[in-house]
Amino acid sequence: MSEPIGVAMLGYAFMGKAHSRALQALQHLDVPVRPELVSISGRTKEAVEEAAGEWGWGEAVTDWREQVADDRVQLFDNGGPNSIHAEPCIEAARNGKHVLCEKPLGLSAEESHRMWQEAEQAGVVHMCGFNYRFVPAVRLVRELLDAGELGDVVHFRARYLQSWGWDADESAWRFDPSQAGTGALGDLGTHIVDLARYLVGEISMVSASVRTLVPGRKVDDHFVAMVEFENGVAGTLEASRLARGRINSNSFEINGTKGSAVFDVERLNELEVADAKGFRRVLVTEEEHPYMRFWWPPGHIVGWGDTFVHELAHMLEAIAGEHEVAPHGATFEDGYRCDEVVEAMLRSAESGRREEVRSR
Amino acid sequence: MSEPIGVAMLGYAFMGKAHSRALQALQHLDVPVRPELVSISGRTKEAVEEAAGEWGWGEAVTDWREQVADDRVQLFDNGGPNSIHAEPCIEAARNGKHVLCEKPLGLSAEESHRMWQEAEQAGVVHMCGFNYRFVPAVRLVRELLDAGELGDVVHFRARYLQSWGWDADESAWRFDPSQAGTGALGDLGTHIVDLARYLVGEISMVSASVRTLVPGRKVDDHFVAMVEFENGVAGTLEASRLARGRINSNSFEINGTKGSAVFDVERLNELEVADAKGFRRVLVTEEEHPYMRFWWPPGHIVGWGDTFVHELAHMLEAIAGEHEVAPHGATFEDGYRCDEVVEAMLRSAESGRREEVRSR
Amino acid sequence: MSEPIGVAMLGYAFMGKAHSRALQALQHLDVPVRPELVSISGRTKEAVEEAAGEWGWGEAVTDWREQVADDRVQLFDNGGPNSIHAEPCIEAARNGKHVLCEKPLGLSAEESHRMWQEAEQAGVVHMCGFNYRFVPAVRLVRELLDAGELGDVVHFRARYLQSWGWDADESAWRFDPSQAGTGALGDLGTHIVDLARYLVGEISMVSASVRTLVPGRKVDDHFVAMVEFENGVAGTLEASRLARGRINSNSFEINGTKGSAVFDVERLNELEVADAKGFRRVLVTEEEHPYMRFWWPPGHIVGWGDTFVHELAHMLEAIAGEHEVAPHGATFEDGYRCDEVVEAMLRSAESGRREEVRSR
Amino acid sequence: MSEPIGVAMLGYAFMGKAHSRALQALQHLDVPVRPELVSISGRTKEAVEEAAGEWGWGEAVTDWREQVADDRVQLFDNGGPNSIHAEPCIEAARNGKHVLCEKPLGLSAEESHRMWQEAEQAGVVHMCGFNYRFVPAVRLVRELLDAGELGDVVHFRARYLQSWGWDADESAWRFDPSQAGTGALGDLGTHIVDLARYLVGEISMVSASVRTLVPGRKVDDHFVAMVEFENGVAGTLEASRLARGRINSNSFEINGTKGSAVFDVERLNELEVADAKGFRRVLVTEEEHPYMRFWWPPGHIVGWGDTFVHELAHMLEAIAGEHEVAPHGATFEDGYRCDEVVEAMLRSAESGRREEVRSR
Repeated sequence: MSEPIGVAMLGYAFMGKAHSRALQALQHLDVPVRPELVSISGRTKEAVEEAAGEWGWGEAVTDWREQVADDRVQLFDNGGPNSIHAEPCIEAARNGKHVLCEKPLGLSAEESHRMWQEAEQAGVVHMCGFNYRFVPAVRLVRELLDAGELGDVVHFRARYLQSWGWDADESAWRFDPSQAGTGALGDLGTHIVDLARYLVGEISMVSASVRTLVPGRKVDDHFVAMVEFENGVAGTLEASRLARGRINSNSFEINGTKGSAVFDVERLNELEVADAKGFRRVLVTEEEHPYMRFWWPPGHIVGWGDTFVHELAHMLEAIAGEHEVAPHGATFEDGYRCDEVVEAMLRSAESGRREEVRSR
Repeated sequence: MSEPIGVAMLGYAFMGKAHSRALQALQHLDVPVRPELVSISGRTKEAVEEAAGEWGWGEAVTDWREQVADDRVQLFDNGGPNSIHAEPCIEAARNGKHVLCEKPLGLSAEESHRMWQEAEQAGVVHMCGFNYRFVPAVRLVRELLDAGELGDVVHFRARYLQSWGWDADESAWRFDPSQAGTGALGDLGTHIVDLARYLVGEISMVSASVRTLVPGRKVDDHFVAMVEFENGVAGTLEASRLARGRINSNSFEINGTKGSAVFDVERLNELEVADAKGFRRVLVTEEEHPYMRFWWPPGHIVGWGDTFVHELAHMLEAIAGEHEVAPHGATFEDGYRCDEVVEAMLRSAESGRREEVRSR
Repeated sequence: MSEPIGVAMLGYAFMGKAHSRALQALQHLDVPVRPELVSISGRTKEAVEEAAGEWGWGEAVTDWREQVADDRVQLFDNGGPNSIHAEPCIEAARNGKHVLCEKPLGLSAEESHRMWQEAEQAGVVHMCGFNYRFVPAVRLVRELLDAGELGDVVHFRARYLQSWGWDADESAWRFDPSQAGTGALGDLGTHIVDLARYLVGEISMVSASVRTLVPGRKVDDHFVAMVEFENGVAGTLEASRLARGRINSNSFEINGTKGSAVFDVERLNELEVADAKGFRRVLVTEEEHPYMRFWWPPGHIVGWGDTFVHELAHMLEAIAGEHEVAPHGATFEDGYRCDEVVEAMLRSAESGRREEVRSR
Repeated sequence: MSEPIGVAMLGYAFMGKAHSRALQALQHLDVPVRPELVSISGRTKEAVEEAAGEWGWGEAVTDWREQVADDRVQLFDNGGPNSIHAEPCIEAARNGKHVLCEKPLGLSAEESHRMWQEAEQAGVVHMCGFNYRFVPAVRLVRELLDAGELGDVVHFRARYLQSWGWDADESAWRFDPSQAGTGALGDLGTHIVDLARYLVGEISMVSASVRTLVPGRKVDDHFVAMVEFENGVAGTLEASRLARGRINSNSFEINGTKGSAVFDVERLNELEVADAKGFRRVLVTEEEHPYMRFWWPPGHIVGWGDTFVHELAHMLEAIAGEHEVAPHGATFEDGYRCDEVVEAMLRSAESGRREEVRSR
């Protein structure tokens, strides 16, 4: 039986549910430390108590300060709205808790940078919740790249398209700039910026157009961007909450000197891989494929929720010293660097010029 | 907090893992009774103990007789090899336990019939583990049919194709007729026979060819069959463990007087639905789609393992009296009737004639 | 400049148009003999004259007897309704004309057999218009098989699905048994029977169900069949004019001991080819692919009409002695053997038994 | 019988073949004027004579000046290398010949502008050969937009990906800047710029990166661009000759306020059309679909070469006064405006800034 590790969770909505279930599943999977669900927190007492009961958390609290001071807690998992990422994570780190924080990391690159610095200084393990790195097919792309199977990257394009923005409830926190920061850019764009950085490298320059179409909406609906990477690769990034017919289509294509790979999260178990002869469809469910040790015989597909199992397993392994969070997981540094790209996009949209990606 | 229900599981291999995980997940989902994992059993002490520890079962036992006599147990879940389906299930039922048994139900239609009769006589809730009925897209097809959206069924075709039979370990129980009964027929064919019965109706006549190609193998590798349904629909059924390139492709097409539906389990979150104008791709992840209350916002797909969550939730709801197992779940009667179709296929392959499907 | 060859055409409807255009195109392509369009015939004077003018035929005649007696004619191309296939073709052959006849060859296996015998006896080149053999991707499958790339065939399934039968004009000759013989069986079924024979081998046994659903219709709407081939391969064949959503989906899958191939005529430039590792999408437009010498650089797809260019080029090459019609083209023998399979299906549907395929 | 019109063609390579065949086919299709193939020209006497013989041109000449002075010629069709577009077209127009010129129109926006002005001044019908406007599915998108079915356009993305650039013969005229101008930009990029203008409207601003990767190559291999349209739509455009696995994938997605459309020329008979409920696959082969009057019953697909039949039919109809070339065909004005976008891309790649698209 592996050692237990106490976990505290902030947030009980979409991400709270995804993380809680993954933690539950990990109690019965082969990981070096076994999560114990100490407490979950949220602003509304009733709701957080219901969540605690539903997902098996030991306690429901309304003040995250209790959690970050709790001796039983070694891992603080922050799945709350973007505006309450920084302070609780920093406090947790200062108290020696390992920290996992949902994306986007902070409300600004400055805030994200501070979170990273604090976590580093505290010497804790830190991770930013870019869960698409933990889709087996995405990890496989990185492995193919590392093994040289696709050659050097030449060209990258990614788009994350949804359509729910047409009929959304405007009172949700995701449409409030003070809680969410940006709209499609922070919610969807950060995912593809992170994948671009994971698969290709640092982005050096962006030229972007960021737009809000729905009347009265205070955050952006969609954006387009052309980017250049430090290694000379050219690319495009786009995201939209207004792409009719698209539900959750997070897709990319990467062209290398030897081969290509094409992915869409709506078919997350599949990867189209090309060599000089053309494309082959890989069902990423073979025993040797990433994370498949947790699951089923070949051809029995995993779901979106399972990516959180992989992500949290990776965090637990990192805590146990089996490997670093990087490069396969995103650290707070990755969360910060992603935000610098986002800010360069915003500057570009404002200035009408290309903008260099800054580094503090 | 919902009432607890004691569960005992037989089998710790592929199905044991799938059921155990689903039961774990159901402890934190909205179901009317909450499963408590009392005991798991298997022949090899060490292995069953490891499984018990891994998946959170209270006890590991090597004799299922202990389980079916255990007062703490209200539900007996049999996921062992086919040859140990009948006796334990019958004993459990006689002891007043509800029974869930993996497919194929018995080693013969006669045995399955006996299991059904015993379970009926005992008055317990009984279910046969045809989990593909619990794929949201499959359930949606049935709902479309019930609502008349596709009109009356005209034509049905199903094929379940895998390729692992080329390089399989012949010592596995699945290749031993005394443990497995048949090969591709019982393992894959029963799934599509059950879907045919669920979606179209009773099969009245079959003409089949059943073949073994791999030298020395004692069970069948693939079969083809033409079928007629009682309601006049014509169809074909085929399965193979020797279809190169196919990993777990369980697919069907149903043509009705008003529309059609096309499905493949390798893309289990998708359904192609046609009306007179052509095909539309439905991503079966909307709030109103079957079982989606358990899961995520639209576009966030579920995995194969999640079908067991749906299946077991259905069983628990039936035990709680919320609905019958039928028609959306398969009962022991369904397990039995499926076996009659299989036996008619075997008779047809032997006789070289069409054979009527019998009913005892 | 290649030698001219005089061509006479019977029929000016769908097939008349397809053949006329192909013959026009072949006047400017690299074939060993150059078609000269001597005359076209049909029952309605006005319509045939219009067709002659439109497609560049030298003369419009209303009696095919003029054509088969015309000294300027060396190739008689019969694209009329099924009921006027036999007599004109036989007369043409007796007069020493090479004959190309649309499928199905005769109204019965007996009639087709007679056509074959007469053509053989006359020593002319004869071909039956199974144009799907001349889809580059289909020919490629045969070449892969001949080269052993897919190993020995294990399993074959084909289905030809359309939906226009729901709203068809019942007065068309295709619904008149005296002109068409059968319905979906002769029109669609013969295409897939021919492909089965071309790709797998002779069919020895069939078990079929043949149905008419539309009230008052005198020919069949759809059928299903299970077949066994002389070489031991098992398969299914199905066709329907009542498959909602399907427009012209003529598809097959062939599983061999080493690989598989999947094809659909709605995407006729593509072939899915599997080896032990999975499926690869081949865009069959490379220079080395069959018939591509006639066309464009890679990736520039051909259309359905172009298959008639390939078919007629093949016939002209056979006439010029460059190769036999068989095996890549269908001869009158192939037309006849196909009809024997169809008749075995009809017998099976009638008798409710499996039926052996006869050979006269 | 429709009136004849004399046609002269410059160029006998890829485009010469495509146009010649289309003109041949149009001699037998329902168009208001019937093309007569007067002469074809090219620099190499032997080659042009062979082409003339092969494709049925009355004469082979080595000096296009003879053609533009020929009284029998009413339509001058220029399919030569880019560097000999301007002078012959201008001379032809001055002589009162209608002109069809392959894309890109001139070697520079300045040259294209002059061609446009000259053609306008001469009062002849002029057209630039953007043949993808004549893919039935592409025309259908425009019709859906005109009918308001997709609402107002929000977002557009297009990419034209090929891979032959990795192993190309560098001595081809397409790699010589003096003959081709640019590389992927002029060859592929102009096609998608034209489609963007056809489907969305004028592009006002671009930010682009244009790259050459293959050592020693003198024209660009690939580019990425972000664009803004006058009507406020945001978009991305990309093209590459170095995208491994891509053969001729010219694809776009257009998102409107009510619906979306997705297209790829590798499946040019298909269109994915979304409304608020999701995507529907339309096989663009129905009688009511654009240009289908020329072809076959539904489901029988057309080929890439057939788009030239549509394009030339459109030109002939315009000459006959049935409609203008615009908006469904591209005029010399369209050829010119496309080049202004290309030049803005080149300026942007050079300056590292966004650049406005100019208008002379």
